[in-house]
Amino acid sequence: MQDALARLTAYWTAQGCLTVQPMNTEVGAGTLNPATFLRVLGPEPWRVVYTEPSVRPDDSRYGENPNRLQTHTQLQVILKPDPGNPQELYLGSLAALGVDVNAHDVRFVEDNWASPALGAWGLGWEVWLDGLEITQFTYFQQAGGLNLDPVSVEITYGIERIIMALQDKHHFKEIEYAPGISYGEVFGQTEYEMSRYYLDDADVAANRQLLEIYAAEAQRLIDAGLPVPAHTYVLKCSQAFNVLDSRGAVSTADRAAEFARMRRLAGDVAKLWVARRDALGHPLGQVEPLRPAIAPALPAARAEAAEPRTLVFEIGVEELPPAEARAARGYLRRAVTEGLAATRLTHDEVRVFATPRRLVAVVGAVAARETDHVRVVKGPKVAAAYGPDGAPTKALEGFLRGQGASLDSAEEQDVNGVRHVVVKKHEAGGAAPAVLAGVLAKVVAGLRASKNMRWNDPQLAFSRPVRWLTALWGDDVVPVAVSTLAAGRTTRVLRTSATPLVRIASAETFMETLAVNGVVADAEDRQELIVTGAQDLVYPDGRVDVAGEAALIDQITYLVEAPTPLLGTFDEGYLALPDAVLTTVMRKHQRYLPVRDAEGALLPMFVTVANGPVDVELVRAGNEAVLRARYEDAAFFYRADRQTSLPAMRDRLARLTFTDKLGSMADRAARIGGLATELAASLALASPTLDRAAQLVKFDLGSQLVTEMTSLAGVMARDYAENAGEAPAVAQAVYESELPRHTADELPASVPGALLSLADRLDLVAGLAATVGLPTGSSDPFAVRRAVLGLLAVHRAHPALARLSLIDALAAAGARQPVAVSEEVLLAAREFLARRLEQALVEEGNPVDRIRAVLVHHARPSIVDTLLAQLADLTGRDEFVQVAEALQRARRIVPESTPAGYDPSLLKEPAEVTLHEAVTAVSGELGTAAEPDLFRFTTVAGRLVAPLATFFDEVFVMADDPALRAARLGLLATVRDLGAGLLDWSQLRL
Amino acid sequence: MQDALARLTAYWTAQGCLTVQPMNTEVGAGTLNPATFLRVLGPEPWRVVYTEPSVRPDDSRYGENPNRLQTHTQLQVILKPDPGNPQELYLGSLAALGVDVNAHDVRFVEDNWASPALGAWGLGWEVWLDGLEITQFTYFQQAGGLNLDPVSVEITYGIERIIMALQDKHHFKEIEYAPGISYGEVFGQTEYEMSRYYLDDADVAANRQLLEIYAAEAQRLIDAGLPVPAHTYVLKCSQAFNVLDSRGAVSTADRAAEFARMRRLAGDVAKLWVARRDALGHPLGQVEPLRPAIAPALPAARAEAAEPRTLVFEIGVEELPPAEARAARGYLRRAVTEGLAATRLTHDEVRVFATPRRLVAVVGAVAARETDHVRVVKGPKVAAAYGPDGAPTKALEGFLRGQGASLDSAEEQDVNGVRHVVVKKHEAGGAAPAVLAGVLAKVVAGLRASKNMRWNDPQLAFSRPVRWLTALWGDDVVPVAVSTLAAGRTTRVLRTSATPLVRIASAETFMETLAVNGVVADAEDRQELIVTGAQDLVYPDGRVDVAGEAALIDQITYLVEAPTPLLGTFDEGYLALPDAVLTTVMRKHQRYLPVRDAEGALLPMFVTVANGPVDVELVRAGNEAVLRARYEDAAFFYRADRQTSLPAMRDRLARLTFTDKLGSMADRAARIGGLATELAASLALASPTLDRAAQLVKFDLGSQLVTEMTSLAGVMARDYAENAGEAPAVAQAVYESELPRHTADELPASVPGALLSLADRLDLVAGLAATVGLPTGSSDPFAVRRAVLGLLAVHRAHPALARLSLIDALAAAGARQPVAVSEEVLLAAREFLARRLEQALVEEGNPVDRIRAVLVHHARPSIVDTLLAQLADLTGRDEFVQVAEALQRARRIVPESTPAGYDPSLLKEPAEVTLHEAVTAVSGELGTAAEPDLFRFTTVAGRLVAPLATFFDEVFVMADDPALRAARLGLLATVRDLGAGLLDWSQLRL
Repeated sequence: MQDALARLTAYWTAQGCLTVQPMNTEVGAGTLNPATFLRVLGPEPWRVVYTEPSVRPDDSRYGENPNRLQTHTQLQVILKPDPGNPQELYLGSLAALGVDVNAHDVRFVEDNWASPALGAWGLGWEVWLDGLEITQFTYFQQAGGLNLDPVSVEITYGIERIIMALQDKHHFKEIEYAPGISYGEVFGQTEYEMSRYYLDDADVAANRQLLEIYAAEAQRLIDAGLPVPAHTYVLKCSQAFNVLDSRGAVSTADRAAEFARMRRLAGDVAKLWVARRDALGHPLGQVEPLRPAIAPALPAARAEAAEPRTLVFEIGVEELPPAEARAARGYLRRAVTEGLAATRLTHDEVRVFATPRRLVAVVGAVAARETDHVRVVKGPKVAAAYGPDGAPTKALEGFLRGQGASLDSAEEQDVNGVRHVVVKKHEAGGAAPAVLAGVLAKVVAGLRASKNMRWNDPQLAFSRPVRWLTALWGDDVVPVAVSTLAAGRTTRVLRTSATPLVRIASAETFMETLAVNGVVADAEDRQELIVTGAQDLVYPDGRVDVAGEAALIDQITYLVEAPTPLLGTFDEGYLALPDAVLTTVMRKHQRYLPVRDAEGALLPMFVTVANGPVDVELVRAGNEAVLRARYEDAAFFYRADRQTSLPAMRDRLARLTFTDKLGSMADRAARIGGLATELAASLALASPTLDRAAQLVKFDLGSQLVTEMTSLAGVMARDYAENAGEAPAVAQAVYESELPRHTADELPASVPGALLSLADRLDLVAGLAATVGLPTGSSDPFAVRRAVLGLLAVHRAHPALARLSLIDALAAAGARQPVAVSEEVLLAAREFLARRLEQALVEEGNPVDRIRAVLVHHARPSIVDTLLAQLADLTGRDEFVQVAEALQRARRIVPESTPAGYDPSLLKEPAEVTLHEAVTAVSGELGTAAEPDLFRFTTVAGRLVAPLATFFDEVFVMADDPALRAARLGLLATVRDLGAGLLDWSQLRL
Repeated sequence: MQDALARLTAYWTAQGCLTVQPMNTEVGAGTLNPATFLRVLGPEPWRVVYTEPSVRPDDSRYGENPNRLQTHTQLQVILKPDPGNPQELYLGSLAALGVDVNAHDVRFVEDNWASPALGAWGLGWEVWLDGLEITQFTYFQQAGGLNLDPVSVEITYGIERIIMALQDKHHFKEIEYAPGISYGEVFGQTEYEMSRYYLDDADVAANRQLLEIYAAEAQRLIDAGLPVPAHTYVLKCSQAFNVLDSRGAVSTADRAAEFARMRRLAGDVAKLWVARRDALGHPLGQVEPLRPAIAPALPAARAEAAEPRTLVFEIGVEELPPAEARAARGYLRRAVTEGLAATRLTHDEVRVFATPRRLVAVVGAVAARETDHVRVVKGPKVAAAYGPDGAPTKALEGFLRGQGASLDSAEEQDVNGVRHVVVKKHEAGGAAPAVLAGVLAKVVAGLRASKNMRWNDPQLAFSRPVRWLTALWGDDVVPVAVSTLAAGRTTRVLRTSATPLVRIASAETFMETLAVNGVVADAEDRQELIVTGAQDLVYPDGRVDVAGEAALIDQITYLVEAPTPLLGTFDEGYLALPDAVLTTVMRKHQRYLPVRDAEGALLPMFVTVANGPVDVELVRAGNEAVLRARYEDAAFFYRADRQTSLPAMRDRLARLTFTDKLGSMADRAARIGGLATELAASLALASPTLDRAAQLVKFDLGSQLVTEMTSLAGVMARDYAENAGEAPAVAQAVYESELPRHTADELPASVPGALLSLADRLDLVAGLAATVGLPTGSSDPFAVRRAVLGLLAVHRAHPALARLSLIDALAAAGARQPVAVSEEVLLAAREFLARRLEQALVEEGNPVDRIRAVLVHHARPSIVDTLLAQLADLTGRDEFVQVAEALQRARRIVPESTPAGYDPSLLKEPAEVTLHEAVTAVSGELGTAAEPDLFRFTTVAGRLVAPLATFFDEVFVMADDPALRAARLGLLATVRDLGAGLLDWSQLRL
């Protein structure tokens, strides 16, 4: 291991990096060392490499966990400015370390980094070596709240895990640290004792005092204008805070306050540093921005007749996140299509392709030149163009001079019916390369992602750096130049290729050249290779659930350019772990495809998809080792959790913040449990199962496994609860409280589960609406939208809950919040919920008029469903249409403000008396029905159809006698209101 | 610089060292890193190399001082156990660094290391590269108060200074840290800002709190049995303490208490670590002690007649301190001489030699065998040996059996006049090699120094490691074996020799072989080479004051084996610095010989003495650069000091501890000033000069230059005081207050200077006598003995102070101490002073009787001098002898208890009346003389001689009448007492 550190250090030193020492106060990561945190600020260049023992009190495991240490070793590299080829330099470092990058599967997998406490973030990747995350690679965008210009590249190697992989060790203690001496022999005791300190023995009061003293010193030093010592005290703050946290002594309020304080201090330090360096005149100089690229010369005009040729335009990028690659492909199609449309170049279809490393547009038969063109330039009116003597006026002369035209060339033409002098200019069409150059430059400049970053280019911004452009029209380079990039005829294929740079003869051979070099540009082709390759590998023992894994397969498709599916296996023993644990690790952490038998049971194997030609045995073994380590980790947590009592796990919730204003997870769990039982009582659905489940709800957030894999919340709760001897129904209810976890997810099957699920989501919506506000646009960090959809789905799925008003329940949830939830907030939430319901119903294909008619029941979505079903049945049936029309007719005649109610003694006409009697009877029969029922209503209210028709035929409503008129209107208003609570009848289109 | 760190690290890694990281909390030295402090404890092997940025808040200089940094870079190596050749390994590391050790002058100069706060110490060297201290090299003996077994070798490189030397830079900021990037560019701002923190901005209250919290955590963790985190908190304590110290916030009491606390904590941590490692079963194994050496076989007996041959015995050591080398030479002579005397080998003179690396005994003409020998063994008395029948008794039989003798061999012989049976045994002398082997083994085993250490040898202990033995008698190896060492015929010459190991053909060629290889074994030869070489180098421009520099020359003689004097020069501009500054640097720090012109003024040159053949130009340049840096440093301090006001310097004394019970140096200076003026007033010697000097006394201890070079105290005071515009007499008095600094030093010339000097020493003696106690034996850490000698010398030099009683003055000094100075203490001090005076007078050659006679005046040594001078004059002169005899006669007759005084009316006899009258007259004339004066006394008291003689002739003293007898005795007692205060007449031998 020490050799590896020395080699990496030597390699980066040879790349011009300074070597400095680790920080001499505890830091959680190399990023905190001033050699990174301060040096990435400001305009000075900086290249550095250093080792940083990184202290994470929370990762203390007494040295027992094979992969987790309270102090692990980072090797940190900063390249400022971005050298333009940091990935290639990085691969060189792996080679220096003895890693054969051609044999291994090295990949750059999207991973963005942010440290709220430092006001810092960046975009980049985890680097995977045969599936193992060995490096964090980040383009630093902001630190201390300041935008970074120039941008720095940060490369952080996790040394222990790299060495474990290279040495094929299964526990960090087994690492050969130096010849004949193991890591455990050297650091084992320290690992144990420092774990003891961080987990058990650190004095909470002392560390709290330390935190305060450090923060005060930091502030004093900021005030004194000394960023360097101030920074060390910010670091000490951070460590003291981490110690308190690992001791379980950080309350919700503390955490929020501390993060805010650290962010503020770090921001002040950063500003001060920048100012100080400025005052010192930037001792290390200043980075010069790259100069704009010069476009290649236009191809010489060709003698031969110019045929249409293919256009190919490739934008070379560093590994894009899958979603961004897909989105960029769409952009490329639009931008190229529109760009071409604005020219007068004829062309065939625009085809676009995207891989992690390139966006390609191919356009067939692009004409050699634009069509020629006559442009009419409007001059003065004829009346104003010539003097009485017929000589040109000054106005005309000026116009002609401006157009460089002679009087001879002046013509006359009607413009909007008025005679004007015009000049006709014949414009020759541009040659394709010149015209295309402009179009394509704009395409590049217009690239944007949902989250953009900067690199060494002074103008461009995109999801990841754009590194090269290839643009050919037929045999000719299209002279595109954008900022510092100029297009050429050289593309880049796989980095591990013998010839990573390849010259393209002509646009027509481009796609073939990529293919020959192993790059599968078309995503559909890649997907096909992945799916068929995977199924071939597992046949006949098992199969990959292609439909079930569609999202994962789609992601993998955009993670590789040259898919190479590989089969790996794992020890059958791990199948004892819950299915969800195994598949979560495979899918989410490793992007492996799970393999199942005919019955759907997991098999001890997986398919991973490497990029390009690799040493299959080596990569397989590497991936298997990674999975084994992850499963070992999971098994470790699983065993530990199963040895922990449920109350002990639940106690840990007090240490988890929900939000700073809404308390801890323990607070939230208590609210959920309380609310669920309250709702159950109101619905007479109380049960011992619910009572017990309400006590346990969310306890598994305090388990180690769920802490590691939050998506397993609920699943593990069920497992642990059953293991702890809870009744299966209780365990199931606790599990179901987390359902649905996403749109297409399973719903709670049991009533206790459904009540807990609702209570969970009601609590979330009420609390967040009152504090953060309801989501608008695409930003929804707490997934309130998903929670509301869950509320609707659960309610709709449980007829037993039909009587429950979600709006009343929301108010009840609001009353339990630690903050006031105002009437306005509840109204807004109600409206939000109604809109989500409406949208869902529309998406389900219901006619809009019916949706609008039933939406009065949005508080009880299952009623909405019932009514919609009834409406679907009744619509078109005469008896219903007649009732509806009758009600409509009454509604149309009666002013809206007229109340239902009248003095029956004033009614004398037979028809009106008959109607009165019918109304009274119907009204009495309808009574206050338990639940809305259109069938019954139609039947009962149907009895009014005939009397009402007679009434309208025989009675003049608007009698002169005001009292009589009021009584008749009141009678009709009563008819109108008979169905008022049932539907918004006005919305129905009959 | 980063390359140098990498090279050294790589070199030591190749020697089997682990590479670890610097400590991630601030440490003052690499020794504090647990990779040293903890790992040197216990039996486990350990080899490690690491870089350690070492934080010394007190060295903060805002980055302005060229050679001093608040954080400097150490490279630390630990070799446990001592590999037996650590010096050679170290030289290899210099070569790895690109240092040509053959061209440079690399030397190991005595330097012992101790950290009281860590309970740690070791013996070793500073390593000098061309006069520059580049490395601390220590055999670690104790840590945390525990004896270390095995012993570790600690090698600590001071990287900045090595790099400054290698890159020829004059300011640390100029170091090329990495290609094209200077140290200042990278670390300049940090150096400034951290200096600001440590010197100006650190919050004292906050750091005090931190210190307490850290100490409490350390204690808690010790109690919890966790040495590793406890150790980190001890380190944090240390840093917090250092910050407080650099902020001037450590009181005397604080410092003592904190050191005690840290020592206790460090000791507890060490004990705990040892126990924990033991409990863990020593994960890194245990060091096996080296096995005893096997002596070479005895040479085969030779056929030829064995002639006497030379014996040579060489004990090869690592560089001994000069004083130890000299002492060991004496031991060797005694031990070999006595050892040989106990054999029956005839031999010539024993000659012994010592260099830093070897102790050699050469003995001429050692006989080939011991002389043969007849031994008479005494048996029973003859009377008891034979029975009545003449047959041997059981007693005789037993004796013979015990001696293995037959009855035939029994003889008879007188033993103490009684006839015994005896047996005569003929014993052949041993062969020289066998006999010598035993003698020489004992010589090695008996080697001891004033301070001894252990190394990898399990039995031996000496000032430095003994590494080889060479023992030859003629052509034969003397088979000496001691512990792990066995003698051979191979010696080691200069390490830089082409053949560092040299085979010795025979004892007779040994000295010649050494000489041929450049080793000058004889100290006198070396001294001659040094002196003549130096004078040759400086001739004719200047000269080296050989007599004045005798002590230095003697030291140099024992610092080199192959003296190579070199002349260096320095910039004349530095001659503006005080002479004492320049010479102190040369002598004390660099062991350079100053060069002066005919008038004694310093010339801008120096002589240094390299060891062995070096590249003269290179070594000269290196030494010149070192001296320049030191002078630059001194000039920096000098300039800074001269810009500091005297009161500001004096204020700094409050930050310097004198002793924990006796307060700060400021307290002490106040006492001295007060006492001096008090004494002056009592002697009517008050003066404005004294008053002003009393205010300033010791102020220069607060100057930077004296802080660096304490031996310049006083000298700099005079310089700075004059520079600040003080009167020359004041400046001189302040200077003189420090005199005499050693036995042969200058004494204060002025009365104010003398009074301050006395007050200084009186304060020291009174305070220390009351707290630490007076020195006994050789231990005298505060130099109380020297202070007392100073008191005596100053008093004796100043007749104006003759009236001053040092004993009264000591009481006055005692009254000013912050502790009670009891009567017993003052009595003991008086006795101590009297003894020192007596000893001094004896050493000055005064007859003991006279000394004893005058010692009654020890409180006023100048009176003693006067009286001794008078005695010398008077002794042998009749008038004095008569007076003395008269007084003696009176004394002998009168009982001691008889008081002087009588009733004259009782005296009737003419002789007694005459005597009475004479006594009355003499007594009246003597009166109470201002000062004792033997001349006057002799003259006046001479008038009693005749009356007294008559009295004795004519009067019978012991009259029957008691009243008369009493009167006569009283009269004689009055005579007796006439000289009582003047001398102890009884001591005089006339």
